[in-house]
Amino acid sequence: MNWEQILAGRMSRMKASEIRELLKLLDQPDIISFAGGIPDPKLFPAEAFRDAMTTALSDSQYATSLQYSVSEGYGPLRDWIADQMGLIGVPCTPDNILITSGSQQALDYLGKLMLSPGDTALVGWPTYLGALGAFNAYEPRFDRLDPGSNREAQDYHDAAAPGRVKFAYLSADFANPTGVTLDQAGRERLLDLAEELDIAIIEDAAYQTLRYDGTAIPPILATEIARKGSIDACRTIYSGSFSKTLAPGLRIGWVCAAASVIGRLVLMKQAADLHTSTLNQIATHIVARDHFADHIPSLRETYGRRRDLMLDALDREMPEGVTWTRPEGGMFVWLTLPDGTDGAELLARSLKTERIAFVPGHAFHPDGTGRNTIRLSFTLHEKELVDEGIARLGRLLRAS
Amino acid sequence: MNWEQILAGRMSRMKASEIRELLKLLDQPDIISFAGGIPDPKLFPAEAFRDAMTTALSDSQYATSLQYSVSEGYGPLRDWIADQMGLIGVPCTPDNILITSGSQQALDYLGKLMLSPGDTALVGWPTYLGALGAFNAYEPRFDRLDPGSNREAQDYHDAAAPGRVKFAYLSADFANPTGVTLDQAGRERLLDLAEELDIAIIEDAAYQTLRYDGTAIPPILATEIARKGSIDACRTIYSGSFSKTLAPGLRIGWVCAAASVIGRLVLMKQAADLHTSTLNQIATHIVARDHFADHIPSLRETYGRRRDLMLDALDREMPEGVTWTRPEGGMFVWLTLPDGTDGAELLARSLKTERIAFVPGHAFHPDGTGRNTIRLSFTLHEKELVDEGIARLGRLLRAS
Repeated sequence: MNWEQILAGRMSRMKASEIRELLKLLDQPDIISFAGGIPDPKLFPAEAFRDAMTTALSDSQYATSLQYSVSEGYGPLRDWIADQMGLIGVPCTPDNILITSGSQQALDYLGKLMLSPGDTALVGWPTYLGALGAFNAYEPRFDRLDPGSNREAQDYHDAAAPGRVKFAYLSADFANPTGVTLDQAGRERLLDLAEELDIAIIEDAAYQTLRYDGTAIPPILATEIARKGSIDACRTIYSGSFSKTLAPGLRIGWVCAAASVIGRLVLMKQAADLHTSTLNQIATHIVARDHFADHIPSLRETYGRRRDLMLDALDREMPEGVTWTRPEGGMFVWLTLPDGTDGAELLARSLKTERIAFVPGHAFHPDGTGRNTIRLSFTLHEKELVDEGIARLGRLLRAS
Repeated sequence: MNWEQILAGRMSRMKASEIRELLKLLDQPDIISFAGGIPDPKLFPAEAFRDAMTTALSDSQYATSLQYSVSEGYGPLRDWIADQMGLIGVPCTPDNILITSGSQQALDYLGKLMLSPGDTALVGWPTYLGALGAFNAYEPRFDRLDPGSNREAQDYHDAAAPGRVKFAYLSADFANPTGVTLDQAGRERLLDLAEELDIAIIEDAAYQTLRYDGTAIPPILATEIARKGSIDACRTIYSGSFSKTLAPGLRIGWVCAAASVIGRLVLMKQAADLHTSTLNQIATHIVARDHFADHIPSLRETYGRRRDLMLDALDREMPEGVTWTRPEGGMFVWLTLPDGTDGAELLARSLKTERIAFVPGHAFHPDGTGRNTIRLSFTLHEKELVDEGIARLGRLLRAS
């Protein structure tokens, strides 16, 4: 059977990531890993989920927890999320909320919603690797979104021909991989650019709740609502997730956007997987309702402390010529190494010598540039391992 | 914001189903419904799932139940499924198994894997509505698969130009919506046709376990393995589900196919939603391992009895000129009404008079034919409601 001839054209773009393959090699007990962008499992509210599951599987008010349910999602969870969105400057109703199986699914659906082959998606250089993967299935071109530059709308437009620019994708708060936050002026400029190009904005808010210091900046969607008066007139599509705040293993995220967009995504979800797990939506609602407000401060305290440990260690250990970001939240610090230092080579060498893991930065660049960058995650380790790991990184860099 | 101009071309094919809208109107307590193709929630092993969730969220061997996990799925569940596949004539390894979020997701992924716009998918006339919906997103043409006819491979091939036939999709056992099973000779002819066209076969086995009488026929995949010697040489892609056997609310299904196909689907899943809920896969494994063998006979007994009740009532109540299938399993009986009787009109009239619900058959036909057919589900009701509902259907038909 020659599968090549019956595969869709899009499949030629889906390849195993070298980086993931390399990181698999590094998943060994003697390695100190700053690679994975994963939350600390010790911080999951496991007991709360256990109690919620017991309730969802025995209380008669949840008699439908094992049954099929509607594609838009479980009503009380959509209500709760709509209320939370209101608290961060996004007044909306449950008609503006779709429950997805994690925010990765939201990215897949938004690519599917807007991208025809040859269309352009504007993304950061670097940007979240999983967004590139999700959009890639719909065969777009990627162009570099840089709200800080003076690049004119017309230039983005011309570069997209004969396709069309469809959306700008970004994480505005403590972005993966850089940890950088877009300031209010940048958000306004991005909205101006999107207006001029008449495109959507996908605001990936996976890390938004995890702010450790500084002042919260309203979501891009909130800023647009302030301009337009109603979410239903907005072009910003907000994607949220419980993966970083409660737990990723239940796969619960959401999209918050104009009701007309949500309506189309509901049809798409019906055709693609019917709905997200009924039981997991009910359990997530119970845990969010009863524990979210108490749980978030403890996450912030722990992750904020670990970020400080990493920044302190970097201050101590990094050789001349290495610079890094100082994120106000999220999970990542982004290092720029001296010109000519290659992050992927450094990682390969680390496997043989210092035994620390990180993600080479070129993986986050659609054009493979950024070779002298690396991403470190600070979520998993306490002082001893952070100090030891960053000291090893310092030695590795000085030996290169 | 004018969304129309930034939507992908595929979105023009995603429309709300009239049928679903009509059925929403019929979701009222005084209506006797034979419409939904859903399992009886009273038969869900809720207690077993509750115990499994408690274990998965407290036993230290499941410490990663709330964490991210691998895209191919939870190892012990893939092992268990591979063993089960062996029992029905499909020797395979976990490398031949991908866990999906329900079998609907498998259909979406398989469309995404193979269909470029303008390619042809061969489907039954009628066929599962959700398969048409899933494939539609990839802009195929549909052609009529009829393994019982003398239609030559060349004719299928010519009809697909300038695209290509990519696969034949069918449910071989107690198909939704007809309840009909393809016999062994039909399976062999289908394999011959697929060989000649050099296309894949998607075997949707959602109902396969629910056989109430007659002799089990090996899956198409088993028949092909018998020809080729190994699953890795096969063109048949088998899609299975726990939705009809354990419960749909956890969204756990699987694909069983050549390892090269599974490898491509793993990349696709990684980009589309990372993985299916870790916790739900662990709980499903525990429940399947400990309860599947005991649970299935009780489902068969109950659903088999309800099928008999419906067939008996049809024998008594249907007027001259109405014919129907006698399924050996699954959930559905398919009625052919006298020429000129329109199932959709009958349903609209039922809303005003007899107050029973069913699905008009044209919805299952890609070309909108089959207007004189309707689908009845027999899974939900016991004798009193079946007798009353089918008597009402008889009156409705005699009044038309």
